[in-house]
Amino acid sequence: MYELWYWSGLPGRGEFVRLALEAGGIPYRERARETEEGDAALMADMARRETDPPFAPPYLVAEGQAIAQTANILAFLGERHGLAPSDWAGRYWVQQLQLTIADMVLEAHDVHHPIGAGLYYEEQKPEAARRAEEFRDARMPKYLDYFDRILDARGEWLAGGERWTYADLSLFQLVEGLRYAFPLRMRTVERDCEEVVALHDRVAALPELQDYLASDLRLPFGDGIFRHYPELDAR
Amino acid sequence: MYELWYWSGLPGRGEFVRLALEAGGIPYRERARETEEGDAALMADMARRETDPPFAPPYLVAEGQAIAQTANILAFLGERHGLAPSDWAGRYWVQQLQLTIADMVLEAHDVHHPIGAGLYYEEQKPEAARRAEEFRDARMPKYLDYFDRILDARGEWLAGGERWTYADLSLFQLVEGLRYAFPLRMRTVERDCEEVVALHDRVAALPELQDYLASDLRLPFGDGIFRHYPELDAR
Repeated sequence: MYELWYWSGLPGRGEFVRLALEAGGIPYRERARETEEGDAALMADMARRETDPPFAPPYLVAEGQAIAQTANILAFLGERHGLAPSDWAGRYWVQQLQLTIADMVLEAHDVHHPIGAGLYYEEQKPEAARRAEEFRDARMPKYLDYFDRILDARGEWLAGGERWTYADLSLFQLVEGLRYAFPLRMRTVERDCEEVVALHDRVAALPELQDYLASDLRLPFGDGIFRHYPELDAR
Repeated sequence: MYELWYWSGLPGRGEFVRLALEAGGIPYRERARETEEGDAALMADMARRETDPPFAPPYLVAEGQAIAQTANILAFLGERHGLAPSDWAGRYWVQQLQLTIADMVLEAHDVHHPIGAGLYYEEQKPEAARRAEEFRDARMPKYLDYFDRILDARGEWLAGGERWTYADLSLFQLVEGLRYAFPLRMRTVERDCEEVVALHDRVAALPELQDYLASDLRLPFGDGIFRHYPELDAR
């Protein structure tokens, strides 16, 4: 059985992997959440890995090998469990979209940490206010319009075809995070990306995700990648 | 023959792809550099792609399909041309490292653009000075030590084994970029990552790269991802 390692208290980047595991019906254990040590167990496991160290969580252990980097884990699961097309064109297309989603996730994080992850938000508030304006005005419409155009051209799912891929699950989670962090701005931006909103709703309604989304395994947002600071949001 | 599309005047992210194509002896055309229109031709091609739009360059056109995202292009070339191990563990390991290199490349960029890529450096100089300090003091040693430990554990190349992979080429280029942008800081940091420096030198000496590195196809650094602003560098 796969072992997923991630910080125990936040959805974060681990959530993109969880959604794929859950929607794919793939058995896994979540290690830092099943012990009392929690994140200390995660840090100890990372330090132990001499030949396959992750730079950062999340990572998935498969047959003893740690696979890190969210998009990389998803590509692995996609290939092995049919969560993406199996032809080369479809496989690299879905991975390309996942990497673009990852870029936007990082930018959403850097809004509240523009100077560095090693400092508190409170130590970089003026810089965060400036970066937030740029993110809301330029980046949010640019990224979401990009995904919207793809859905316009390809149909219900990002790769076209009849079934979701792991990138569709991730785009759902990205919309969830943006709605949490920038509720005012999203209300405006969503008017111009109806296809993205419709995709979000299709994922939210997937039968294979209902149990998970209703359970307390699904962690709420908080002080992670997506954060809600009212002073960084605006219409 | 592959078509590589990237901005015509800078090494940038395109250079990671060029190094793999050149070291792999893979024929390609570089489209924006072979026409007089240059970057206008690139932008026109991007706008034309309805079902496979890249979010940003570089992208590689293979059998009519555009493959974007640097790490994704490299994974494709790696798989198809043997520039990475062919077993799943080696393939995802090399991609994981490439994505970690890409993370550091983006951080090196964000040092001079902490507020946003849509503004000039001159519009974000105080913020850049703060981010540069964090990058020099915390991030540079952390990333380079990470790659150093891997080489310590695995041997001459990042995946172990007898031959370079595309991630080794990229780590070479990362060191080149950091030396250009932060020459003072690199002199200090390199003392603690001898394996990374040795890998850089091994790649620089690869027979299959000599012609390319000596040619004027190899673009010099400038106002791209890696920039040298003396006020952002320090021992």
